[in-house]
Amino acid sequence: MLITPGKLLSKINSPEDLRKLDASELPRVCNELRQYIIDIVSVYGGHFGASLGVVELTVALHYVFNTPDDQLLWDVGHQAYGHKILTGRRDTFHTNRTMGGLSGFPNRKESRYDAFGVGHSSTSISAALGMAVASGLENNKQRQHIAVIGDGAMTAGLAFEGMNHAGASDSNLLIILNDNCMSIDPNVGALKAYLTDITTSQTYNKIRDEAWHLLGKLSNFGISAQEIVSKVQNVLKSTLLNQSNLFESLGLRYFGPIDGHDIDHLTHVLSDLRHIPGPKLLHCLTVKGKGYGPAEKDQTKWHAPGLFDKVTGEIQKKVYHAPQPPKYQDVFGHTLVELAEKNKKIIGVTPAMPSGSSMNIMMKALPERAFDVGIAEQHAVTFSAGMATRGSVVFCNIYSTFMQRAYDQVIHDVCIQGLPVIFCLDRAGLAGADGATHHGAYDIAYMRCIPNMIVAAPMNEQELRNMMYTAQLEDTQAGSRAFTIRYPRGQGVMPHWHTPFEQLAIGKGRLVKEGKSIAVLSLGHVGNFALAACEKLEKEGISAAHYDLRFAKPLDRTLLHDIFGRFDKVITVEDGCIQGGFGSAVLEFAADNGYKADIRRLGIPDEVIEHGEQPELHHLCGYDQEAIEKHIFALVGLPQSIPDL
Amino acid sequence: MLITPGKLLSKINSPEDLRKLDASELPRVCNELRQYIIDIVSVYGGHFGASLGVVELTVALHYVFNTPDDQLLWDVGHQAYGHKILTGRRDTFHTNRTMGGLSGFPNRKESRYDAFGVGHSSTSISAALGMAVASGLENNKQRQHIAVIGDGAMTAGLAFEGMNHAGASDSNLLIILNDNCMSIDPNVGALKAYLTDITTSQTYNKIRDEAWHLLGKLSNFGISAQEIVSKVQNVLKSTLLNQSNLFESLGLRYFGPIDGHDIDHLTHVLSDLRHIPGPKLLHCLTVKGKGYGPAEKDQTKWHAPGLFDKVTGEIQKKVYHAPQPPKYQDVFGHTLVELAEKNKKIIGVTPAMPSGSSMNIMMKALPERAFDVGIAEQHAVTFSAGMATRGSVVFCNIYSTFMQRAYDQVIHDVCIQGLPVIFCLDRAGLAGADGATHHGAYDIAYMRCIPNMIVAAPMNEQELRNMMYTAQLEDTQAGSRAFTIRYPRGQGVMPHWHTPFEQLAIGKGRLVKEGKSIAVLSLGHVGNFALAACEKLEKEGISAAHYDLRFAKPLDRTLLHDIFGRFDKVITVEDGCIQGGFGSAVLEFAADNGYKADIRRLGIPDEVIEHGEQPELHHLCGYDQEAIEKHIFALVGLPQSIPDL
Repeated sequence: MLITPGKLLSKINSPEDLRKLDASELPRVCNELRQYIIDIVSVYGGHFGASLGVVELTVALHYVFNTPDDQLLWDVGHQAYGHKILTGRRDTFHTNRTMGGLSGFPNRKESRYDAFGVGHSSTSISAALGMAVASGLENNKQRQHIAVIGDGAMTAGLAFEGMNHAGASDSNLLIILNDNCMSIDPNVGALKAYLTDITTSQTYNKIRDEAWHLLGKLSNFGISAQEIVSKVQNVLKSTLLNQSNLFESLGLRYFGPIDGHDIDHLTHVLSDLRHIPGPKLLHCLTVKGKGYGPAEKDQTKWHAPGLFDKVTGEIQKKVYHAPQPPKYQDVFGHTLVELAEKNKKIIGVTPAMPSGSSMNIMMKALPERAFDVGIAEQHAVTFSAGMATRGSVVFCNIYSTFMQRAYDQVIHDVCIQGLPVIFCLDRAGLAGADGATHHGAYDIAYMRCIPNMIVAAPMNEQELRNMMYTAQLEDTQAGSRAFTIRYPRGQGVMPHWHTPFEQLAIGKGRLVKEGKSIAVLSLGHVGNFALAACEKLEKEGISAAHYDLRFAKPLDRTLLHDIFGRFDKVITVEDGCIQGGFGSAVLEFAADNGYKADIRRLGIPDEVIEHGEQPELHHLCGYDQEAIEKHIFALVGLPQSIPDL
Repeated sequence: MLITPGKLLSKINSPEDLRKLDASELPRVCNELRQYIIDIVSVYGGHFGASLGVVELTVALHYVFNTPDDQLLWDVGHQAYGHKILTGRRDTFHTNRTMGGLSGFPNRKESRYDAFGVGHSSTSISAALGMAVASGLENNKQRQHIAVIGDGAMTAGLAFEGMNHAGASDSNLLIILNDNCMSIDPNVGALKAYLTDITTSQTYNKIRDEAWHLLGKLSNFGISAQEIVSKVQNVLKSTLLNQSNLFESLGLRYFGPIDGHDIDHLTHVLSDLRHIPGPKLLHCLTVKGKGYGPAEKDQTKWHAPGLFDKVTGEIQKKVYHAPQPPKYQDVFGHTLVELAEKNKKIIGVTPAMPSGSSMNIMMKALPERAFDVGIAEQHAVTFSAGMATRGSVVFCNIYSTFMQRAYDQVIHDVCIQGLPVIFCLDRAGLAGADGATHHGAYDIAYMRCIPNMIVAAPMNEQELRNMMYTAQLEDTQAGSRAFTIRYPRGQGVMPHWHTPFEQLAIGKGRLVKEGKSIAVLSLGHVGNFALAACEKLEKEGISAAHYDLRFAKPLDRTLLHDIFGRFDKVITVEDGCIQGGFGSAVLEFAADNGYKADIRRLGIPDEVIEHGEQPELHHLCGYDQEAIEKHIFALVGLPQSIPDL
């Protein structure tokens, strides 16, 4: 489908072209850019509301600043579509998030305009400060360093740490606070209330105005006014300018709030700020989804809506003629409520992923026992640990890739203390179109090396339900071990998923399919690939057994003794990194017990895996059904030719 | 040596005993408690200044609050000596930090008065909030939840995340900001400047006073004063009470600053605060080392001074008659300056560990290129990544255990982007007396699973120098991989450590001692145990080869092919967890290449290892020289009896 950019936009092949335009033409550029984003995303998919909200900011920044020499950083990065389109990627933009196409986030390998690769939030202040300090050491006082960060991202500790350092430095840093009151879900916490307060009441500006007005009045009295004026001025100056504002407290000069959709005003303010040295913050108010009615109205739904009819605003839904398997996310959400209704000790915690994780189901059903703590993974885990000390049974749901942010808290606050917090790691394994920054590739390796930790992964919806059920039982909780349950993004395999609960024995796997020549050991949803492979080969005369180990830790030692007693060829399969993962745990067992079987490990190789559809990536990484079949062939040694393993 | 507590203190076996005393007796309790800490620490060692600084706070908190039902959390925890002494551990306190004795930090297993186990900083607000929320759900409005946190710990993102959540809640939480302007080293950053500002100028209180004074004056004029007064009052009220203070901005009621050494005032203020519901913060000013002159003067030195003469204030130094090996820390510090003097691109970064890591040597020699960013590990890494994008060669030094806090930043901001940041992981392996929270046990496992990452560990000082030299070379940097160098706490093995630099080939190990029957493969300083074992056994007729692999990643494949070609018995030794660590990497190589050798892995077992001297712990964990000898015996199968391996 041919999508044509508007007349002005079609001539902008780089920010230099943009900078040749007259300022009066910028509103038209904004319109065309917004339209182009709507056109492309409606047909090809992707993140939506965030980029629409920063169209004017994007145009103004590239117009005023000398990119790419000036360093422009987009926090999180899913709002950078306009930036990509203006920086030479307009005509390839429709390949966004597809395998081999553009990344959905800024990426240093993709463009010299992408000053810093992103995907996770709240990194921009620290990274931009690093660049600014480096420029300072080169004695380059010209170069500007701009971090565009949302109010949601601002709640993460990393942003605060960056500000605390920046405010004490004299670096050439401009933080643009893109305040739209949203993460993917509505933003939460005290900071949000604070920003709303200084915005809606505009107290800061109001007080300044009132004070001036007051001074005017006082002067009219004529008596001793000089002294009073000077005194009041001093008081107000020190209060208002140095301390009345959170950001000023942290040593950043604060400007704003200003309307982030007024392109004229934006370019003027940014031009002025260019000439103000030192660390500073511009507070911009924007609307997520700006310029597209339905997206302005339901911002969470339109964060990444999928394909839609841009005229009617109708989001495409696939129509199925048979019941479909649910998403693992929804199984988590519904099961949690089901369990929490019976077990009053259950609490739900998520850091800013209520809709993504389906924790919102519990937030709606049992609001007083479900917490969205904002983009604050570290806090989510330590907060959970605190509740666990008081006997709460906490389900802390964090995407696998974001759990990397709370690694110390898992070790230090949970496992060393033997607190039985339950971690549900959503989007574990290759996450798909979000790409390298979002794959949950490392969690098996980084979790299983921690003492007092159970690591499990369900092969299907029923297993997920049973793992959740088992984790919250009193017996399990009494074991004083944390319990990690990792499961992938997206659809499961069981249309009739609402099975009765069944307690699982911790550290016990199961035989799924009997076989004679070789054993395939899987962990998690990839067991379905393994089973399909084994079943297919059975028909071709190769008898492969399939075991679903369920637990990467503790391993089922009894079952493994049995397996290694019977088989001298073993394949392990996991949707995780092969260094140190589940397969390595099996190697450790075999070595510790003197087994000499041939063991082949399938999983994510030691590379940065970019974006693509999940099945494409499973194939690329060599652990889909086809790959498992090939490896079985190769090990069992049938005289069939095996193309490049 | 018998140390007798004072008369009052000797009768306090629990806070209940303390609470029976008349308030007038508390100053004497404080004196006796302070004296007892000085007596014990001077003779038995431990942390010093922090606990002296909170003597009055400790007594006041246990006097006013109903511990242990009220939950009292000591952030970091090395200031909790007074707390331990008052809570039933007075007579065992001399066993502090020794193997089998008391932990140097609060520990839930040790006492029901230790509401939360600690060691790392900045966890207390989140954990206390979790407890407060749990109490709220139980409908317990009586229970108090108190987090005592230092101004240094307050700079960490986790503390900010906790406040952002707390300020938007209605929980019964009291944060006590113990402001002594220090971490181990002087505190840094904008927050410190801010706290100093509200403290020294007492602007907050001053403005309020001045404003009231001004209002008085205005009233004297008599004209229209009502209106003006009301207006000014409103303005001041909203400004001063809601926004003029950083903590109020975050929704916390702010009280203070007050003198943290005035026991009378403290008990009164705390009694009042008990009755104020909701989240609140009391700002206490204290002096680290209070009451012991030398400690007040040089607070960094007296953070944990070792043994000393309490009368003269002289710190004991061991006297040696021959040159001693330096600490790895000092080799790092001096070598960094040596390299940085030649390579102008080199930058040093440490999060609040300048003296511990010896980064202070570079901070003194090249102050503009060495950064202490405060307790902010996440920021330290992303800030380093930002500098690396501009061509800086960054040595980011973080203790292994604290690097757990920046795990996502290592993956997301450094490795996925292929930025060649150099991570020096100090105190890797078992850290000794600091215990479970401080062991650097997991870094090999959690680092080697990341793509674009080199993981190395030096066997001695010369190797450390050569690894640092190699990491900063242009060739290495051009490889776009991060470079982790892990080394242990404390003394090395080379009195003459200042060797000429030599470039190492990345991923190349070395044969240290030839042998015939078995190969011992080591990573890092434990190579010295391995070598000693092999040399000793050589004399007893057992020929064991010793290889120092140097790199856990990439592995030296050529060398390993050679080793597995020659040996069918292999032992791996590392000062790190055996799940997923160096030994597992060797297993992976063997499995991937079809080698069937017996491989035995020695390292830290899958348990929480408590405190003790490093050699005691190496012995306990079974990888000191003696253990290696036993395992060689066991594998080579000499007819010698091997007691319980």
